[in-house]
Amino acid sequence: MTQAETTPLRRRDLLSLIGAAAGSSALYFAMSRLGHAQGSDYAGPINLSGDPKGASVLILGAGVAGMVAALELRRAGYRVQVLEYNDRVGGRTWTIRGGDRFTELGGATQDCGFDRGLYFNPGPWRIPYHHRALLDYCKRLGVTLEPFTQVNANAYLHGKDAFGGQPQRYRTIQADFNGMVSELLAKAVNTDRLNALVSKEDTEVLLEALQDWGALDDSYAYKAGEDASERRGWRKPPGGGLSAEPIDSTPLRPQDLLQSHLWRRLSSGLDYDYQTTLFQPVGGMDKIAEGFAREVGDLVRLNARVTAIRQDEHGVQVTWEDKGSQTMQQSRADWCLCTIPLSVLSQIEMNVGAPMAAAVAAVPYSPSVKIGLQFKRRFWETDEAIYGGISYTDLPITMIGYPATGYFDSGKGVLLGTYAFGPYAYEFESLSPAERIAKAVAFGAQIHPQYPAEFDNGMAVAWHRVPSQLGCYGQWTDATRAEHYRNLCAIDGRILLAGEHASYIPAWQEGAILSSLDAITRLHERVMKS
Amino acid sequence: MTQAETTPLRRRDLLSLIGAAAGSSALYFAMSRLGHAQGSDYAGPINLSGDPKGASVLILGAGVAGMVAALELRRAGYRVQVLEYNDRVGGRTWTIRGGDRFTELGGATQDCGFDRGLYFNPGPWRIPYHHRALLDYCKRLGVTLEPFTQVNANAYLHGKDAFGGQPQRYRTIQADFNGMVSELLAKAVNTDRLNALVSKEDTEVLLEALQDWGALDDSYAYKAGEDASERRGWRKPPGGGLSAEPIDSTPLRPQDLLQSHLWRRLSSGLDYDYQTTLFQPVGGMDKIAEGFAREVGDLVRLNARVTAIRQDEHGVQVTWEDKGSQTMQQSRADWCLCTIPLSVLSQIEMNVGAPMAAAVAAVPYSPSVKIGLQFKRRFWETDEAIYGGISYTDLPITMIGYPATGYFDSGKGVLLGTYAFGPYAYEFESLSPAERIAKAVAFGAQIHPQYPAEFDNGMAVAWHRVPSQLGCYGQWTDATRAEHYRNLCAIDGRILLAGEHASYIPAWQEGAILSSLDAITRLHERVMKS
Repeated sequence: MTQAETTPLRRRDLLSLIGAAAGSSALYFAMSRLGHAQGSDYAGPINLSGDPKGASVLILGAGVAGMVAALELRRAGYRVQVLEYNDRVGGRTWTIRGGDRFTELGGATQDCGFDRGLYFNPGPWRIPYHHRALLDYCKRLGVTLEPFTQVNANAYLHGKDAFGGQPQRYRTIQADFNGMVSELLAKAVNTDRLNALVSKEDTEVLLEALQDWGALDDSYAYKAGEDASERRGWRKPPGGGLSAEPIDSTPLRPQDLLQSHLWRRLSSGLDYDYQTTLFQPVGGMDKIAEGFAREVGDLVRLNARVTAIRQDEHGVQVTWEDKGSQTMQQSRADWCLCTIPLSVLSQIEMNVGAPMAAAVAAVPYSPSVKIGLQFKRRFWETDEAIYGGISYTDLPITMIGYPATGYFDSGKGVLLGTYAFGPYAYEFESLSPAERIAKAVAFGAQIHPQYPAEFDNGMAVAWHRVPSQLGCYGQWTDATRAEHYRNLCAIDGRILLAGEHASYIPAWQEGAILSSLDAITRLHERVMKS
Repeated sequence: MTQAETTPLRRRDLLSLIGAAAGSSALYFAMSRLGHAQGSDYAGPINLSGDPKGASVLILGAGVAGMVAALELRRAGYRVQVLEYNDRVGGRTWTIRGGDRFTELGGATQDCGFDRGLYFNPGPWRIPYHHRALLDYCKRLGVTLEPFTQVNANAYLHGKDAFGGQPQRYRTIQADFNGMVSELLAKAVNTDRLNALVSKEDTEVLLEALQDWGALDDSYAYKAGEDASERRGWRKPPGGGLSAEPIDSTPLRPQDLLQSHLWRRLSSGLDYDYQTTLFQPVGGMDKIAEGFAREVGDLVRLNARVTAIRQDEHGVQVTWEDKGSQTMQQSRADWCLCTIPLSVLSQIEMNVGAPMAAAVAAVPYSPSVKIGLQFKRRFWETDEAIYGGISYTDLPITMIGYPATGYFDSGKGVLLGTYAFGPYAYEFESLSPAERIAKAVAFGAQIHPQYPAEFDNGMAVAWHRVPSQLGCYGQWTDATRAEHYRNLCAIDGRILLAGEHASYIPAWQEGAILSSLDAITRLHERVMKS
């Protein structure tokens, strides 16, 4: 090539060159595979066409399900009012910051002492890439997102009886598990023991695959050496100049690895909901609630405790207490979309048919306790090179979640110090907030010895004690779902329900949104017909 | 609990509670494991104590190795000058933006037509969490970092002969590979075929582990169903309200999976260098170069082409051409730290001993071609839900790298459209830049059919044609390293070398920095002794 070219190369210059470089058929590769299932059925903004002629809808609950409905129904021409128990919108889409006060059932009040700019999401804290409806609302509402790290190869896996209580790096457990599994299988294949399962033609390819994936050597062994160290890390890592030669690390013994049970957490990043790339709103999950509030905050009546929902053939009348003035009020509309958690709704008078009533009563709510801990420095980053992600333990705290923002900041940081489920959640819940926090610090110190010296303050949210929720999310079983789910979602006269509990994506905001969109679509069809 | 508590809970309140919640021994868990090998030997900022009494050092090359040395040597009291071939600092730490012009060997000139705010890193593009020295310099230099996504479960794996050329999502290949491997091994274990390898005591645990990790059902089969779908994705994903029930997807047949060879890329995220969490500078990799320039830019003479390096017993004299005035110049110092790539240095006159000369001549440089493509919209996000990460293919482009920044932006975006190695790199290199770009678009269209319609413009960097580099990085073999590495790094009279080529972390900025720190430490010891 001797002549200087004139560039930039623009598309008009390119089309002829492409023809030369590849067959034109390559350029028109079937578009049909685009738009394949990407995690939710969401196909873009809902379109409720047709004039509802002034029909009114009373929405109960200003969580994401209620706010989505308020936004879309008003846009479609409905008259909309929203009643919300709390003094804020968002429901479980909630962020706690310094200066916030929270009083739980039983009366314990916590005032948050986090430093400015730090926060803790006691509810949802991550958004999978395939939660397309939620991502679309974030975009439409101007909510800025940043990546959330789920799996961190340098975070810890900890078992109180595993390796003398010494936490192991996720990467070493992952590498050694892959190595063990691939070596065992390669040796089984090698000895013709798997011929009944794998054809001879595929055996060679399988061996090649196992060697690559499991970091096996040429004799199909996983052992101390460069191959294993490039996966699990080095005893002395490679450096520069003289004295730079690395020293290999030695894998764990397979029986020790198996009996440690630390492999249990290797699947944590394999589940569809936790696969890369996940996101979180910059500044806290309640930025989503704030986004909705900018659009439809004017429709919401805060501090409104619903006590009765009564329908007749003309509409729905809701009785509620204004928590400020402690006076009883009534609101009426043609229709009612109720997004109140079933744990609360089951205690509210509502005249629906037996099928919906039975469904409302059938779903227990998951217990869970989340504790945010502020530390005086981000020691997990500076001392231990853990940037985001999660360490797992079999202690009652279950996990330690590292902040996926503010990396490398010199100041303080807030960890998720406990995310307890099931019996462990009840164990925490039975304690005072201060005792819960102390317990989280004490257990966490087994993983991060810096805990006691660096602890600053904390906030503990036990979901069964959150007055507006009485639990974390609707815990369906296959049996209850088979019996009750359709009855829960079907329109009962002039009342219909929405929320994560009315979805196949329980506990997630996406479930709440899709449930809401499905409900208002069916409501709108009903209104258009009438 | 009946009394409201006074909070926030402060550390002083906590210490007694911790004692109650856990044995005090738990609080003082051995600190010894902290500071364990975290990827590089870097132990924090270098300390060159002692007065060098005005000793001078001439540094050749203003890449990260040279800039680190300039910064640290000046701080230690040395008189420092840096000569740099290019009209910018940073070397391979380089970012191309709209308005930039690049002329390669052979004379082809490209003017970059990227839109404002968009860029392409033709050199390093990611920073592993364990590159502690580089991360520390980023912090010290005020370079802001953001997460870089390597593995994206929703990106594609593509083989031109696999599945009729239809790209597969990474998550389906990963889930099906894990399922296949675990099912084969579980069945081998079940039939007592592996008793020679695994004790009966461990077999039960192994089966439990395989079931969990491989998403096997109770008969240890990996097959269409909820378990597999929660890993590989659904045919119809779960939704909300009525019609929300998901439909399972069906795994690939093991023989099809094996013969597709798409499993080859599953190890891409398992390697230590590519494990989570990785980072990139906000705004482009050259923010690191800019950071160094703020500190020591005043020491750098740009546009200086070194033609000869001659030492005697008193010092080193370097002859160089001022590319602006096309005049020859000379600079002299007590010592010379040369960071010029060996591919270029081997063509420069330098009077060192036979061992170093042989080492300089012994290391070939890796070919590689990187192509940045600007598209009119971020269709990989909007159409295909791919946010960051990499799709891999066996086509010559090797991969498509998605930007790990600007997620959800409505405007244009720049992809890494080619990262070709080896023979494929030579194939691209032999073409004009426009032809390379056309080829990248034509091949990429086999993975993203939107390419031809959405292509806007591109920039192609063939590293063997970059005048200051003549290749991508020093490609050591075990044999050349055994013979030459120590001779390359040892001080020869008054000359010593640094750069990624003088490290065990070739091609990475961390190798260049650690090499430089090691070199100037040894130089300083020498100076202090004399």
